Amino acid sequence: MTALVFLDADVSTGRIANAATAQLSVLDQGVTRGDGIFESMLYTKGVVRKIDAHLARLRVSASTCDLILPHEERWRAAISTAVAAFDAATPSDEAVVKLVATRGPEGTSEGTCWVMVSAAAESGRLQRENGVSVMLLDRGYDSRAAERAPWLLMGAKTLSYAVNMAALRHAKKQGVDEVIFTSSDGIVLEGPTSTVLLAHRDGDIKRLITPTLETGILPGTTQGAIFEAARAAGWELGYGPLTPEHLMDADGVWLVSSIRLLAPVNSIDGTTLTLDRELHAELTAMVNNIA
Amino acid sequence: MTALVFLDADVSTGRIANAATAQLSVLDQGVTRGDGIFESMLYTKGVVRKIDAHLARLRVSASTCDLILPHEERWRAAISTAVAAFDAATPSDEAVVKLVATRGPEGTSEGTCWVMVSAAAESGRLQRENGVSVMLLDRGYDSRAAERAPWLLMGAKTLSYAVNMAALRHAKKQGVDEVIFTSSDGIVLEGPTSTVLLAHRDGDIKRLITPTLETGILPGTTQGAIFEAARAAGWELGYGPLTPEHLMDADGVWLVSSIRLLAPVNSIDGTTLTLDRELHAELTAMVNNIA
Repeated sequence: MTALVFLDADVSTGRIANAATAQLSVLDQGVTRGDGIFESMLYTKGVVRKIDAHLARLRVSASTCDLILPHEERWRAAISTAVAAFDAATPSDEAVVKLVATRGPEGTSEGTCWVMVSAAAESGRLQRENGVSVMLLDRGYDSRAAERAPWLLMGAKTLSYAVNMAALRHAKKQGVDEVIFTSSDGIVLEGPTSTVLLAHRDGDIKRLITPTLETGILPGTTQGAIFEAARAAGWELGYGPLTPEHLMDADGVWLVSSIRLLAPVNSIDGTTLTLDRELHAELTAMVNNIA
Repeated sequence: MTALVFLDADVSTGRIANAATAQLSVLDQGVTRGDGIFESMLYTKGVVRKIDAHLARLRVSASTCDLILPHEERWRAAISTAVAAFDAATPSDEAVVKLVATRGPEGTSEGTCWVMVSAAAESGRLQRENGVSVMLLDRGYDSRAAERAPWLLMGAKTLSYAVNMAALRHAKKQGVDEVIFTSSDGIVLEGPTSTVLLAHRDGDIKRLITPTLETGILPGTTQGAIFEAARAAGWELGYGPLTPEHLMDADGVWLVSSIRLLAPVNSIDGTTLTLDRELHAELTAMVNNIA
């Protein structure tokens, strides 16, 4: 069951709707043009995690895409309504709270905004527990494209995810679980729905590294939360440019995202990676404590 | 008024629906992931133009995206039903027939497919009559990306059009009508919703040129039809790689697409272009005769 709540100017707490019936216009530019933005948050143990970070990133995506969003308080109210409706119907250990804002039907100036809550797919938990095999795929863009071409909307989380989905299908056809995109000039970017982390241990020094945002990747809210916890725990933090060799040489590589949390990368392009179990346990504890 | 007909296994002629009410699930991957494909055809003087070419390109897009389409006869039947419903309600000189096929709601294996017919926007006619100012914008991809990275879905007409729409908004903010994308290595590609043509006259020889498909651009159905007519009229035909200098040096540059047809480019990045009026008249006659 999916709990669905539309943001509605007439209903301050949001308008509850039935997700099992049709609710959207075929003229909505969210579908005709993939023209909208979204966020996915984990709802577990009665808490929607990192809600501030996700609402902040939604605002950045909206600004990049020239979308005007309803006031943040209306999002928070709709999230509360949706979560309560979900809990009343089908409580679940882990659920996904998805926020969507589209440009609305063609010919109108009113966007369409909704919150939906549904049970998390099994795949996130499985990736977290078993790790993932990864293949590197070229994202086509060079690592300078984002700064010179803002109309490419890099760094915005838009509904135009067809390429991300195609990359995952391409990997699965080769029997591989996941993808890490590289730029056309060989720089490590991100997964289709995840951020890349790597770690090193050097005596007592633990170092956590993620690709630099200047490559045009999405700023990861989970990466951000882990970095904060790692800093507090005395880790050194670093920001790429990273090459595939950096991944191969690390003491651990992970894909992180809001729903799957922290999934260790077992192999890249068929080559088995090292995983320092102690680093993995420490990072897992950090990610489990994200509020 | 928009006439709307869903392809439906139970109704061979398609299921008529009300486009003014909600008809789509918020879980449809067409909206949650921009995961689907489309075509737009011109309906004028009782004829849906280039229907074979559009259905053929829809099949190529589906194959690129691993989508299984309903049989072509069901599309044709739904198009007939939609056009008849449109004519009965609001006949119009020029209408757009749009075909959409999405991957369907998450967790199902059934795609969502529909046909909608609505009056063509004034903008197409205006561009045709007045021409357009253009700015060149970097598409971020190099001209070899398509051949080495099929997961980028270049050459498929997907619903993930947010970048195309952002590029047009970017141009309009600078007071410019339209965009021609270039590759990161400086090759002319296509417009966000159009194909680029250029022509030269050299004594009695007339030559029509378009960018090569190897750059990953969408194969233009209107470009294809004009090339066929031009060949029959004795023109020489050529396929790029083209650079912006080729555009500047031409005796005419046009953006062509199914609804706007043939729009002359008046200027590129502020530089006024030449337009050979005779070539323009000849090409306009060809495009008006497309069936």
